[in-house]
Amino acid sequence: MGELCVRSVLVTGANRGIGLGLVQHLLGLPNPPQWVFAGCRDPKGQQAQELQNLASKHPNLVIIPLEVSDPASIKAAAARVEELLGGSGLNVLINNAGIAKPISLEKETLETMTQIYTTNTAGPLLLGQAFLPLLKKAAQGSPGSGLSCSKAAIINISSTAGSIGSAYPWKEVVFTSYRCSKAALNMLNKCQSLAYKEHGILCLALHPGWVQTDLGSSAGHTPPLTVDTSVKGMLKVLSSLSEKDTGTFLDWEGKVVPW
Amino acid sequence: MGELCVRSVLVTGANRGIGLGLVQHLLGLPNPPQWVFAGCRDPKGQQAQELQNLASKHPNLVIIPLEVSDPASIKAAAARVEELLGGSGLNVLINNAGIAKPISLEKETLETMTQIYTTNTAGPLLLGQAFLPLLKKAAQGSPGSGLSCSKAAIINISSTAGSIGSAYPWKEVVFTSYRCSKAALNMLNKCQSLAYKEHGILCLALHPGWVQTDLGSSAGHTPPLTVDTSVKGMLKVLSSLSEKDTGTFLDWEGKVVPW
Repeated sequence: MGELCVRSVLVTGANRGIGLGLVQHLLGLPNPPQWVFAGCRDPKGQQAQELQNLASKHPNLVIIPLEVSDPASIKAAAARVEELLGGSGLNVLINNAGIAKPISLEKETLETMTQIYTTNTAGPLLLGQAFLPLLKKAAQGSPGSGLSCSKAAIINISSTAGSIGSAYPWKEVVFTSYRCSKAALNMLNKCQSLAYKEHGILCLALHPGWVQTDLGSSAGHTPPLTVDTSVKGMLKVLSSLSEKDTGTFLDWEGKVVPW
Repeated sequence: MGELCVRSVLVTGANRGIGLGLVQHLLGLPNPPQWVFAGCRDPKGQQAQELQNLASKHPNLVIIPLEVSDPASIKAAAARVEELLGGSGLNVLINNAGIAKPISLEKETLETMTQIYTTNTAGPLLLGQAFLPLLKKAAQGSPGSGLSCSKAAIINISSTAGSIGSAYPWKEVVFTSYRCSKAALNMLNKCQSLAYKEHGILCLALHPGWVQTDLGSSAGHTPPLTVDTSVKGMLKVLSSLSEKDTGTFLDWEGKVVPW
């Protein structure tokens, strides 16, 4: 199992947390991608400062304005990436952008349910649609049969919080809207894997572990994993994926997560 | 295993298909409920004619105006049911109302995703919240420990289409928004079961089978099950539920469905 080797990759929600970590580690690979597209809601904002600093040092990093809950923004991002790629395809789309609200079941509302579903589930569906032509192109341009990330892949960053079969250790039932959105994302991943297999595109739901990010710490706990450990593990998993993995749900160590 | 014996039950989406079948069979039980509340979007409309005819014959059937995608309508329905129950609780809430769009993955939009999630997933969450005081009251008023439908229960009508682990026999990937909403509903059911267990409320995700209804036939196929067979099976399952079943996903024959 070697290092991940892809020509082009787009990471959504790339300005902080796991998204930023993915961008940093992709840039630091022995054989880094020719294009790392970093989707970010507000590229000029304070929260994108670190991403801007990285971009000033790495000419293969391009920040793409992208609000994953806005279909028009997604279409504009796809058009911009297509223009930059100049006729070649996109190997990997990493649907990483996600939000959560650490509220109890009783505090959930139609608004929290809809808002979180829009970003965490509908967003990845719309991104898959918008980038499908570029992913198809990458698959067609790759030699050999089978599926892999070096060919074309959609990686949906999910969570064990979306695993209905896992015994989750919460005493209090929090994050219901988040848990529902991630269970739905796992189903979306399954649907994408069935629909896009014929186009040579691998689809994976990937649990990054419980990571020390704003989201991971949002219920007042201290998560066990650093961003570095999580991201290194995930990139190793991505490098090893093959046809048998499409439509599955793995964690950052490559272990199968129950639905 | 005897017949289902409950004092009061609310069925949402009760004017046709499986909802209407549930109402009919509940009224026909050897020991019918004292109250059958039939939630219906438009009680005066043409599509509620059959329900109106039933209500004219059965004084224990009350039609309740209820649009499950509208929080205000849900609150009004809960207030109306509370008033009618005059101090006693509600034994069973059956979240049956649901919608689907037989479109391909590529045709899904933010609107279809949001609309179907609102009705199929957020609706059952809001109904659980709104009827929680009445369900708690029913549980408190029932003798004995353990969980059962004759005490208090939320039954979420789900679907194997929401089962990520099932090998679903679709050649074409249709119903993505529906499948995502039902996977999310299964997660909601799990969250409700964890949160409401201490209140004595059983929560079940229930697959009615593939039934000859407008929804079941909406992709142009002929489903194998009649409404009668499905509803008889489901009521038998409900009569047999106990504490071990809360949070699970069963079908109309009582078989466990994979997540």
